[in-house]
Amino acid sequence: MSPTNELAAPTGLTLRRVAIDTYHENVAYLHRDCAVVRAEGFQALSKVEVRANGRRILATLNVVDDQAIVGCHEIGVSEDAFARLEVAGGHPASVSPAEPPESIPALFRKINGERLGRDDFRHIIRDIAELRYSKIELTAFVVACNRSELDREEVYFLTEAMVASGRRLDWNETLVVDKHCIGGIPGNRTSMLVVPIVAAHGLVFPKTSSRAITSPAGTADSMAVLANVELPFEQLTGIVRQHHGCLAWGGTAQLSPADDVLISVERPLSIDSPGQMVASILSKKIAAGATHLVLDIPIGPTAKVRSMPEAQRLRRLFEYVAQRMHLSLDVVITDGRQPVGRGVGPVLEARDVMQVLENDPRAPDDLRQKSLRLAGRLIECSPDVRGGEGFRIARDILDSGRALAQMRAIVRAQGDRSFDHHHPALGALTQAVRAPAAGVVIGIDNLQIAQIARLAGAPKVQGAGVDLCVKLGQQVAAGDVLYSVYASYPADLEFARQASERASGFSVGTAAQVPHVFVEF
Amino acid sequence: MSPTNELAAPTGLTLRRVAIDTYHENVAYLHRDCAVVRAEGFQALSKVEVRANGRRILATLNVVDDQAIVGCHEIGVSEDAFARLEVAGGHPASVSPAEPPESIPALFRKINGERLGRDDFRHIIRDIAELRYSKIELTAFVVACNRSELDREEVYFLTEAMVASGRRLDWNETLVVDKHCIGGIPGNRTSMLVVPIVAAHGLVFPKTSSRAITSPAGTADSMAVLANVELPFEQLTGIVRQHHGCLAWGGTAQLSPADDVLISVERPLSIDSPGQMVASILSKKIAAGATHLVLDIPIGPTAKVRSMPEAQRLRRLFEYVAQRMHLSLDVVITDGRQPVGRGVGPVLEARDVMQVLENDPRAPDDLRQKSLRLAGRLIECSPDVRGGEGFRIARDILDSGRALAQMRAIVRAQGDRSFDHHHPALGALTQAVRAPAAGVVIGIDNLQIAQIARLAGAPKVQGAGVDLCVKLGQQVAAGDVLYSVYASYPADLEFARQASERASGFSVGTAAQVPHVFVEF
Repeated sequence: MSPTNELAAPTGLTLRRVAIDTYHENVAYLHRDCAVVRAEGFQALSKVEVRANGRRILATLNVVDDQAIVGCHEIGVSEDAFARLEVAGGHPASVSPAEPPESIPALFRKINGERLGRDDFRHIIRDIAELRYSKIELTAFVVACNRSELDREEVYFLTEAMVASGRRLDWNETLVVDKHCIGGIPGNRTSMLVVPIVAAHGLVFPKTSSRAITSPAGTADSMAVLANVELPFEQLTGIVRQHHGCLAWGGTAQLSPADDVLISVERPLSIDSPGQMVASILSKKIAAGATHLVLDIPIGPTAKVRSMPEAQRLRRLFEYVAQRMHLSLDVVITDGRQPVGRGVGPVLEARDVMQVLENDPRAPDDLRQKSLRLAGRLIECSPDVRGGEGFRIARDILDSGRALAQMRAIVRAQGDRSFDHHHPALGALTQAVRAPAAGVVIGIDNLQIAQIARLAGAPKVQGAGVDLCVKLGQQVAAGDVLYSVYASYPADLEFARQASERASGFSVGTAAQVPHVFVEF
Repeated sequence: MSPTNELAAPTGLTLRRVAIDTYHENVAYLHRDCAVVRAEGFQALSKVEVRANGRRILATLNVVDDQAIVGCHEIGVSEDAFARLEVAGGHPASVSPAEPPESIPALFRKINGERLGRDDFRHIIRDIAELRYSKIELTAFVVACNRSELDREEVYFLTEAMVASGRRLDWNETLVVDKHCIGGIPGNRTSMLVVPIVAAHGLVFPKTSSRAITSPAGTADSMAVLANVELPFEQLTGIVRQHHGCLAWGGTAQLSPADDVLISVERPLSIDSPGQMVASILSKKIAAGATHLVLDIPIGPTAKVRSMPEAQRLRRLFEYVAQRMHLSLDVVITDGRQPVGRGVGPVLEARDVMQVLENDPRAPDDLRQKSLRLAGRLIECSPDVRGGEGFRIARDILDSGRALAQMRAIVRAQGDRSFDHHHPALGALTQAVRAPAAGVVIGIDNLQIAQIARLAGAPKVQGAGVDLCVKLGQQVAAGDVLYSVYASYPADLEFARQASERASGFSVGTAAQVPHVFVEF
């Protein structure tokens, strides 16, 4: 998408918005009998350039045989692509065979196993952020950078390029803290506790989060149960100035936009290689203006990281790139053997969080302890706090109700949604999943629980999800409820029920079979 | 696509054909406000299963905001996908989150650099042939198998799996010959000469070819100028029985269908790794029933293979896999420094071929010599021909007019199109490209000439293309015509003109700079 003064391609077409959301890929639609150009000839070339209004975009071409979708004198474009042209339908437009994006030779070199330089990554990431890559090219980049294909210097170049591809916030503060988890553990809503605790201590903590992509809830999804999370940038800044913290959706801020595009192909392939994970996470945090980051790496048999040596290798890569990018990083290795807390899904997780903030006796202790530990590490970034004191300070802030007050202030500032966690609005349809035999819970599969909650409708349906009744090491009798599934639509409940019948996610055995804790907790 | 007795997903939707050709990818379209399932929740999961008529397909989901495309009680599918369901629009249908194709764990192992076994390739290729892979998964497979990632045993497994994915013809003959070129050389229409020569000698030569994908003409495109090439299988068999040979389009025969799907992502990435090339070519030829194959590997600075050591490595891999598949293979290394013949494009290439068959003094000698050489090698497959005699026999057949008579018989049998090569129907719009300075032609870029012919409209527009006036080593004066571009549509001529202005494809210099011939010719 850039203005151009080049020779215009032959025109005679008008632009048409084709109301299809093609999910981070520009698609152009031409009628097979297009009056101006031969659609089928273009298709095999795979990429066309559409120009209108002095702008141009690259798009993948689909040939259409229905004038209700696109006529013979029209060039149709999908919703993303239409928005990028910033012009009304009916505007004159032209289409021509696309010159490949400038960075394609560098991509081909990477596919062929070469090491790339700083400028190569800059060009590739710029083209990706501007949606100039097709899904095919994106996938080729992701797979070619998979495994140990990127050395740590290349990961640094990639991170730097991703930061440069979008906006970079500057808070004019010497100390801006943030926290992040590498993901994969359902119910792990520590940010909604760590932010109010650390902000109550006075540190600046502008937390922007993504919405869930393949998980049943992201921080932004759960926070949206309590408050508005789609904040204009100026409002977000004001809230951080006044309350030291916020819990907002980062999507409007255009932070590391190439990351969102790359994720659209990484997730379907379950590719989460160390290099791409480091670049993705650090670029978002650096673009958000963080100076100090606490990073949570959970270990467990169904977590992203499954052994301590693997966690240590990942930690070293994070630390190397953070140091090159002048970010102070503190890695915390945590227990990822099972979901954190009880609820999995936006409303259920918001309920758990509020119980912890209110010091409710029903509050899940694992969520409380983990949040205090992470908050303590961040509080120790303050020059006046001695190492080892953070946990106690965090606990005092939580126990005294100051964290709750801070959260209430942030919620009011962002726009209170009046969530009543004593009467959470759960999905009206429910299904209990029961223990097939007596024994001790020896395994809870993070991936399967996430999948079931997702099928039940989370996060799109806020009240949908999974509510766990027992956790690792607990004794169950045959027929005891392991968890309840909540849904709002019959089809969703049915999808979730079928999945839980195939595999409930729970394993029951003897006390000796409970996997040991990889880390102190 | 397989019948199923499984528990049906919740339904209440009706099927709708969405007349969009998504080019070897099944796409499903759901309205954002679909009454039955949450379209956006599905989208991030990237793959859905659509069931109708006892059949099921996997598809990538696009969310739609226009009821003219798909309504709230409909599930739309793209043209390929609709055809696979074999049912009329309006039929009850259901959609559910897809279980990943069975072979995905094997794909992930390949992405992670593991060696795959025979069954892995069989499962992957079956899923690919049945369009169960998304473009993202296809690309991941292709990139993960690129470079030296496949050992020769794996290439054999891949070839075998590709043969097994489709139909395999059996001619009930001990000797069935075929020829193939690895491609990349415009104008290289030797098959249309080799088939009539070798068939006139009495060998069975059932030549099926593909249409051009990114080249300006395939054998099937040029043959279509002379005769019908879309033959029902029974007719094709009859012609081969009667005339020993045919020149038909292979698309209807379902030979190695996975290959066509893989090509749809390999071409945009210019990936043509040795392993994939060997599996692609040999699987097609073995599926077509060949027992003896002559393979043409051209070498040149803009050919696919650019050095003799590279050609020898490729030859050894072809020979290893052919031997494992019990195919007798004869590799011929040829001159790939420039296009073969004069014309590039269906009509222009058909004209060159007819001139050679008629022993017209204007016939391009390089096309004649190369065809005789390849035909000679095939004729030597006959038990009664001594090594070294083939070329002379082929030349006698051509010079005597027997090859022309054989071709005329084949053309009549397939359905004569009454092509008059003395007055070929070329595009009405033309543009001459001239030498900028005097000198000797020292380079003709195969890729650039192919691209210009393609932009001019070839192969969709039969009379479009490039007609070369001079070849390597010839002297030109400034302003001499190097080649003429033919087109039928103003937009096409303009695209080709712009491309030839950026780079004509010709280099002019001194006689000493003409690249040496890698091979005897």
